[in-house]
Amino acid sequence: MALSDRILMGPGPCNPYPDAVAALGRPMLGHLDPEFLGILDETNDRLREVWKTSNRLTFPVSATGSAGMEICLVNVIEPGDAVVIGVNGVFGGRMVEVAERCGADVTRVDFEWGQPVDPEQLLDAHPNPKLIGVVHAETSTGVRSEIGELGANKGDALLLVDCVTSLGGIPVEIDEWGVDLAYSGTQKCLGVAPGLAPVTVSERARQFIVARPRSWYLDLNLISKYVDGEGARAYHHTAPISMIFSLHAGLGAVLDEGLENAWERHETCGRRLREGLTDLGFELFAVEGHRLPELTTVTVPDGVDDAVVRSRLLSDYGIEIGGGLGAYAGKVWRIGCMGHTARLRNVELLLAALTQLV
Amino acid sequence: MALSDRILMGPGPCNPYPDAVAALGRPMLGHLDPEFLGILDETNDRLREVWKTSNRLTFPVSATGSAGMEICLVNVIEPGDAVVIGVNGVFGGRMVEVAERCGADVTRVDFEWGQPVDPEQLLDAHPNPKLIGVVHAETSTGVRSEIGELGANKGDALLLVDCVTSLGGIPVEIDEWGVDLAYSGTQKCLGVAPGLAPVTVSERARQFIVARPRSWYLDLNLISKYVDGEGARAYHHTAPISMIFSLHAGLGAVLDEGLENAWERHETCGRRLREGLTDLGFELFAVEGHRLPELTTVTVPDGVDDAVVRSRLLSDYGIEIGGGLGAYAGKVWRIGCMGHTARLRNVELLLAALTQLV
Repeated sequence: MALSDRILMGPGPCNPYPDAVAALGRPMLGHLDPEFLGILDETNDRLREVWKTSNRLTFPVSATGSAGMEICLVNVIEPGDAVVIGVNGVFGGRMVEVAERCGADVTRVDFEWGQPVDPEQLLDAHPNPKLIGVVHAETSTGVRSEIGELGANKGDALLLVDCVTSLGGIPVEIDEWGVDLAYSGTQKCLGVAPGLAPVTVSERARQFIVARPRSWYLDLNLISKYVDGEGARAYHHTAPISMIFSLHAGLGAVLDEGLENAWERHETCGRRLREGLTDLGFELFAVEGHRLPELTTVTVPDGVDDAVVRSRLLSDYGIEIGGGLGAYAGKVWRIGCMGHTARLRNVELLLAALTQLV
Repeated sequence: MALSDRILMGPGPCNPYPDAVAALGRPMLGHLDPEFLGILDETNDRLREVWKTSNRLTFPVSATGSAGMEICLVNVIEPGDAVVIGVNGVFGGRMVEVAERCGADVTRVDFEWGQPVDPEQLLDAHPNPKLIGVVHAETSTGVRSEIGELGANKGDALLLVDCVTSLGGIPVEIDEWGVDLAYSGTQKCLGVAPGLAPVTVSERARQFIVARPRSWYLDLNLISKYVDGEGARAYHHTAPISMIFSLHAGLGAVLDEGLENAWERHETCGRRLREGLTDLGFELFAVEGHRLPELTTVTVPDGVDDAVVRSRLLSDYGIEIGGGLGAYAGKVWRIGCMGHTARLRNVELLLAALTQLV
């Protein structure tokens, strides 16, 4: 069977950091082995550094990013709770869907795709919501929204932020911004394989955790007795050991480089990519001032066949880029430079290949 | 940091098959890459062989074994549904808990720990339950229960079976036994790292899937549009690519050996382990005739300090064995021979080490 070696420039997964790949093969340990628990504690410490938080309840959920969204909602939302959610792309829409399944009474505030959410409109949408939810970096559009203003003016509401495509790639400041609940994925700017959802929960949000959430697998009361560094560890479920080894190593690579340096590397790649694509005649999709360096979106020019070009990029160059979602399928490309993929050599190669193909 | 190389003879995780470890490092692919989708399809084909089923909806859930339990319940149970669950250990109790959180009206039928469930008592517990749930191989006690009689006499009920510790180690016959929903974990007799929950759902059970289950992450309607081999693949969540590579390879190792040969290897190890432990003066905990070869339980003899011996096994020999759960903490050992760990050399080494320590 083929063992293709792709350059992954879609909306994630990226190519993982070599250290993260190597750690996957580390000898297996039991989930109650003191050595493994030490690695888990250290992973959570590293996550706190990357999240810029002192939240004690900070750990990787044993499932992918969308389970991070679900764990944040299912633990604090009870049927009938008022929730305000900003929607400027697919993942805001997903948050509405998940909140509704938790029984929330959702006020959905829509914004044009390609635009950020407007904090003021979100804050005005309901007099006293239990929770305000928003996506920091919309993976469907390549747009960054401002979080700090929401945190500063949220009042008694809990602020939930989707950081799947932002964490590790652009500044995320959980404590400074006043974020109560946030989740991410390992396969984007953290440069690790998909499979875990780092989450962080403020002490204030912990007061709102319901006694018996609808989900047992995602029950933070039970999970915190295992992941929490102090006291005896109570078994809840068997941790995904190898993936945690890998996250531990991937975070090590990011922190060895320096988080700010990693942001700068993503920024440099994004700038060059936007410039190169514009030179090739592409129009940028996300509004200026809110463009993610780690995920560039462009409209597919007239006369360029979306499927043909993406397929030839894959077959002739081994490069994956992403197509549009929803109404923008066939009309938009999403080009990621995340994690280990965020290297100028990859940007230059992609631009060279596109020069041949379009 | 230490990189200890354990011999994992607890209740799971086991030592993974070398092929499964190597596959973790396979170059990353996108979750919509045709090459990855081919590997996923082949993984599901291999799972069907191991499950002995033709169920089309057979795939690995992107989370650990307990999420397999939850996905089977949350998709078919609606508030008020009558459910009968047999409890002869921790995992039957967990099934009650998960079913109750789905809103089920649960009739719990308890059996002594160390004994199998009695199919007749389960069948008599309720006149027309929507679902009967049972654990095939209780990881907390090392006991195997009979499934075929339940399947033959279940009437209109759906039969849900926990195969976490049985799949790959002892015969599991989903179609022949009339099982409607079943789940397992990768880290036991399949010989892969923890992180995925293989599930299989019969065509009959699919008729019962509710339109909008309480969990979005575990929504089988949405997931089946991605994992199902036919037609276009609709993105639901980013698959845990590296773990699926590993499961693909681990199943390949099992099927190359021959599933029946793998069962026989587990059987041989279990027999020798029981014999050796008995010679050392241990008393077997699980009732005769229902002892799992892949997980042997013994009562800790008087005068033997549970914590000291297990700790010395780990520090002096690098061998992990498991302690008892619940009321049997400190009183019972659970000794696994699963997956790649199920080799006579490991059994002999453990017996030699115990000869020194007890």
